[in-house]
Amino acid sequence: MTSTTRTTGPLDAAPAASTTAPGTTAPAPAAANLSAPSAATPPSPGAVRPEPGERIDVTALGRLLDGRWWQLRRRARDLALDPDLQKIEGLPMAEHRERVLRQLRTLVAQGEVLRAFPVALGGKDDPGGNIAGFEELVVADPSLQIKGGVQWGLFGSAVLHLGNAEHHARLLPGIMDLTVPGCFAMTEIGHGSDVASIATTATYDAGTEEFVLHTPIAAARKEYIGNAALHGRAAVVFAQLITRGVNHGVHALYVTLRGDGADGAPVLLPGVHAEDDGVKGGLNGIDNGRLWFDHVRVPRANLLNRYGEVTADGTYSSPIENPGRRFFTMLGTLVQGRVSLSGAAVTASKMALDIAVRYGLERRQFTGADETGEVVLLDYQQHQRRLLPLLARTYAAAFAQAELLERFHDVFSGAHDTDADRQDLETQAAAAKPLTTWLALDALQEAREACGGAGFIAENRLAGLRQDMDVYVTFEGDNNVLLQLVGKRLLTDYGKSMAKIDIAGAARYVAARAADMTLHRTPLRRAAQSIHDTGSRARAAGHLRAADTQRELLEDRVEAMVAEIAGALRSRHASPVEAAAVFNAHQHELIEAARAHAELLQWEAFTAALARVRDPRTREVLTTLRDLFGLTLVEKNLAWYLMNGRISAQRAKTVTSYVDRLLVRLRPHAGDLVAAFGYTPAHLRATIATGAEGQRQHEAREYFRRLRAAGLEPVNEKELHASQQRSGLATPAE
Amino acid sequence: MTSTTRTTGPLDAAPAASTTAPGTTAPAPAAANLSAPSAATPPSPGAVRPEPGERIDVTALGRLLDGRWWQLRRRARDLALDPDLQKIEGLPMAEHRERVLRQLRTLVAQGEVLRAFPVALGGKDDPGGNIAGFEELVVADPSLQIKGGVQWGLFGSAVLHLGNAEHHARLLPGIMDLTVPGCFAMTEIGHGSDVASIATTATYDAGTEEFVLHTPIAAARKEYIGNAALHGRAAVVFAQLITRGVNHGVHALYVTLRGDGADGAPVLLPGVHAEDDGVKGGLNGIDNGRLWFDHVRVPRANLLNRYGEVTADGTYSSPIENPGRRFFTMLGTLVQGRVSLSGAAVTASKMALDIAVRYGLERRQFTGADETGEVVLLDYQQHQRRLLPLLARTYAAAFAQAELLERFHDVFSGAHDTDADRQDLETQAAAAKPLTTWLALDALQEAREACGGAGFIAENRLAGLRQDMDVYVTFEGDNNVLLQLVGKRLLTDYGKSMAKIDIAGAARYVAARAADMTLHRTPLRRAAQSIHDTGSRARAAGHLRAADTQRELLEDRVEAMVAEIAGALRSRHASPVEAAAVFNAHQHELIEAARAHAELLQWEAFTAALARVRDPRTREVLTTLRDLFGLTLVEKNLAWYLMNGRISAQRAKTVTSYVDRLLVRLRPHAGDLVAAFGYTPAHLRATIATGAEGQRQHEAREYFRRLRAAGLEPVNEKELHASQQRSGLATPAE
Repeated sequence: MTSTTRTTGPLDAAPAASTTAPGTTAPAPAAANLSAPSAATPPSPGAVRPEPGERIDVTALGRLLDGRWWQLRRRARDLALDPDLQKIEGLPMAEHRERVLRQLRTLVAQGEVLRAFPVALGGKDDPGGNIAGFEELVVADPSLQIKGGVQWGLFGSAVLHLGNAEHHARLLPGIMDLTVPGCFAMTEIGHGSDVASIATTATYDAGTEEFVLHTPIAAARKEYIGNAALHGRAAVVFAQLITRGVNHGVHALYVTLRGDGADGAPVLLPGVHAEDDGVKGGLNGIDNGRLWFDHVRVPRANLLNRYGEVTADGTYSSPIENPGRRFFTMLGTLVQGRVSLSGAAVTASKMALDIAVRYGLERRQFTGADETGEVVLLDYQQHQRRLLPLLARTYAAAFAQAELLERFHDVFSGAHDTDADRQDLETQAAAAKPLTTWLALDALQEAREACGGAGFIAENRLAGLRQDMDVYVTFEGDNNVLLQLVGKRLLTDYGKSMAKIDIAGAARYVAARAADMTLHRTPLRRAAQSIHDTGSRARAAGHLRAADTQRELLEDRVEAMVAEIAGALRSRHASPVEAAAVFNAHQHELIEAARAHAELLQWEAFTAALARVRDPRTREVLTTLRDLFGLTLVEKNLAWYLMNGRISAQRAKTVTSYVDRLLVRLRPHAGDLVAAFGYTPAHLRATIATGAEGQRQHEAREYFRRLRAAGLEPVNEKELHASQQRSGLATPAE
Repeated sequence: MTSTTRTTGPLDAAPAASTTAPGTTAPAPAAANLSAPSAATPPSPGAVRPEPGERIDVTALGRLLDGRWWQLRRRARDLALDPDLQKIEGLPMAEHRERVLRQLRTLVAQGEVLRAFPVALGGKDDPGGNIAGFEELVVADPSLQIKGGVQWGLFGSAVLHLGNAEHHARLLPGIMDLTVPGCFAMTEIGHGSDVASIATTATYDAGTEEFVLHTPIAAARKEYIGNAALHGRAAVVFAQLITRGVNHGVHALYVTLRGDGADGAPVLLPGVHAEDDGVKGGLNGIDNGRLWFDHVRVPRANLLNRYGEVTADGTYSSPIENPGRRFFTMLGTLVQGRVSLSGAAVTASKMALDIAVRYGLERRQFTGADETGEVVLLDYQQHQRRLLPLLARTYAAAFAQAELLERFHDVFSGAHDTDADRQDLETQAAAAKPLTTWLALDALQEAREACGGAGFIAENRLAGLRQDMDVYVTFEGDNNVLLQLVGKRLLTDYGKSMAKIDIAGAARYVAARAADMTLHRTPLRRAAQSIHDTGSRARAAGHLRAADTQRELLEDRVEAMVAEIAGALRSRHASPVEAAAVFNAHQHELIEAARAHAELLQWEAFTAALARVRDPRTREVLTTLRDLFGLTLVEKNLAWYLMNGRISAQRAKTVTSYVDRLLVRLRPHAGDLVAAFGYTPAHLRATIATGAEGQRQHEAREYFRRLRAAGLEPVNEKELHASQQRSGLATPAE
């Protein structure tokens, strides 16, 4: 878009500075591979920086953050340095979709994405390591992460976890090597969160030993299905399994959707219908669409029959007698989706804060009181208030995610795989995913606003990342529905007496889920007995910064909220309709209690991580960050603590000023704290995070210095007035 | 994307229902022109609805909401029914830009967008009516609104308000009829909010009677300039005006950018450089870009010289002696941009809630306790909690916007145009725009999440609107900077004693602005004298729902916060550096005080509007909505009220339960309250707001009814177990 050549005046910027022109991205570091995070620390001339001896150990902290599968995580991160895997903002949807499909083939060639599959089939039987790498694909393009997730995490996982050995041998190779791109066709337009109510039917025909897959009504069309519009050659389709006149509930079948057309392109088979969802708010590299079926015949052998089998004559059997329990067991095998979305959201949050903090450490606006130059954005209190608590939340989320991933690996590697383990994992994932995905949106939005107009330009990535992450808060379990699930678990754990209350209506799904749960390894750790003796320390001498005080305040709130709701629910059990009304009147409170519980889990994970930090200075700074996380939680819910007598008014007034002090203490370490995330400018690919702004400022300072030195700087009118007044001359035009 | 024809089984849905297929938009009403809003009420079978006699007067309420310029507003709204003016989601950027340029020409033909210009030139001298219509263009495409705003609201306005009669006669016709698409080139990459520090220079050359316009450094490049990348043929460029060796500060010049190329397409003139900003987070129908100048010569007559003139020999003169005051007077003439953005944000908020409430009244999920059917989303407490307070905020914002627009019209029509009027208008606009633009993002995001996956599909508009509205929170004045400006005004008004405090550093811009302000018509209405006797009513018998109690609580908080900050600033005045540090330590608090003040203005406007409602039932419901607005503000800041002894802990506990009761009371009126916004499905253009969901449900119910009637419904496995157990048979497979 530029034009004629520019003549340079004697005092104009030196040509060297022209490399900092807006729109020019800095060259990628020659050897970004596993580069030490500390090397990525942005230059911040004049900004508040800790003395050399006071700096935290960025390398060790980076290692801690990257966790158990740090090598796999960094390898995936650096895979995202391949330009062919990177998102091109503004690419038309059709091209973006084909590009992402090609990228998936590149991932297959790399082999990393197949780690979760059986060794016998070329995988590594490494579910945790697989997801650790997967989480980092967001750095390249969230569409790539999600399309990969659809293929291997949902479609492939469903075959792996719901199918038998024959299915694995017959179907997984094509799924793994992407010769069969596929769909996970569960959601219907008529039913999103309420999967049990889907209306697609698979009716067994003993005459031909086939299931007849059928979409009887528009509400039963499969909707928002990745790979449905274009690329899907097969699908795992969820349908009500009907045999011998009995509906055995939701089961999954492997269904071929498309065959080869004349030119080898996929063409829909007879009876299979698809429609394109078209443009979406983000993730436009994925061809989401609608699917419906008109009496499509599926061989009996394609029923994924681990939890429900139909013999040739149409007899149904299942290893799980209770249909409700069977349903939730089947769905539970797919928890991997939530775990990996949660991790991807943490990755996006890190990137958002990394970009905004780097820019905030460099960008200056308005001349400071000392007249020596303009003030760095991150020196403004409001800017600290906007970014640093989000940084603390991101650290907390990262440590909690690491714990979730370990538990996931324990279950799916078979190390700790009891029913109770699975249920705890599901609850933990249901608690984690809402917080991390909302955090990603909060962090990306605040970062975008904190970078002003630059944050809105696609080349700085924040806007595009936010668009892509948007749907994470409602897919793979709507965040509010998930929190309600957690809330119900908290109620169940609160005491057996709770089992007697009538729960209906809004709680039906949740109730059915909860009925299957044991009380083993309860997330609500201390339960009822401790309710009465809490608050003592927090009210008394305990300092707000003391970890015990914070823990007590956070635990106490969860427990008291749960106890209060339980009390309200217990006190009435008239008709189911009335009971449902009472439950509904506490729905918001229950969701808030679940959120408080999930926040407590994050705080505990953050606190546990502190013990693993060896360098005292690093531990001190990280403890301050943990305190910021804990105290901003207390600040957010201060009214509750005051109303319920946990904190005195006097004490409460100190919370905000305490938070303000923590911000000042953390300010010098902000650059190091984001550097520990391990992203270089080449990973972030945001012009504003390349140092371009600092170079422009340097050029500007040099220009004005030379202007002054040459005596060519114009007099400022204001100064002229002042000097004229001093010399007794009349000021002009008054 | 569909495929072969579908055979219909005997019990399949009747063909009529196929019109409700996803992706099919409902046909636009034949006569949508000024159609009564009540006609737009969505059908909601089975949902909670008020009895006929209990319904509000939607038509009268719609008229009240549309305000003084209701006819112009509705005409603009219906202009948006023209498919040629509507946004096409997913259109490639280049095509979108050309489409919006063509749309601007359509607007010129309609003539409405020229109402603000002088009658003598074909306008209507109607600044208020002009903006009222402008606000509604968001319904068609926010890019259209903003590109129109660049052309007529910024570029044209600058010529109108900063130029003289000769400029008007010579330049405005081409601007008005779009033969000269133009730019408003103020912001530089190095300086966004700090306009006074821009570094582009316009140095007067008496030898040729020209200004030499020059960009000496990369930081001085104009950035994010609409029309800069492609369409701009001219620009109003802001630069430091230097003549006879004196810099007289920022002034505006009219500069030709592009001439006709070989094929008539615009081509950059020598010395003018432009670069495309490329893809943005939204508003991609506008060709934003960078502009810079290499010793470009501009005739002396093109200085827009209303506030600063240079004679042929280079003598500078201005009607405003003080350079700081001159600068702010010049910028103040451009307040129109903030007023119209604020109004556009209200429009977007209305659309968001309209779509989400219509869908929430129709969509059902999970079977209710009475087993008769699934529960409507808006009957869930959490769904009410998510949407209804936003609906209350939208009403409050709409009424406050109407007041702002009246004041804007008073000033710019000349009816009430003193310096004080202008300053009050600027403060009011600075308070309004942050709240309305953040509201739009909150409403669009919550609506999008409340509609689940459907909210993410572009055809339902929420995602695209949110992307387009995103930048509204940082352009035409960053929201945080604007709130700080309001905060400073509150401090100034708080008392003359405040004038003595040293303010520096972060406050420099704000301080300069405030120094010019009089204390006439202070936004801080009751100031210091009332601080000491507040809180009595709220603490005592006054009911929380009483308007006086709410007002007192809201006013009291603003005043007490301002007093506290003032006290903190007054107590020290050592070095400027120290004073700046103290100011910075209270920056967050000051911004929060400004937010509280802006919320109070909204509450007052809402309350004032109640008196204009004649129908008692409507007034009652609207009062309930106002109470919801007031009490959710109190709830949000409950900790403050508790800590500062304004509300007892006992009382505070009732706030949330009171809010919950208001939600239940408002629930039956939700449909009517959004219908009063006056948008039909044809305006909203969201498939989920067309009744498609209701029709799908109807089809589903009919299908299952026929299945049962025909005796073809399969037995549910659960029921089978139960009946087998009853009859003493063993259950299978256990």
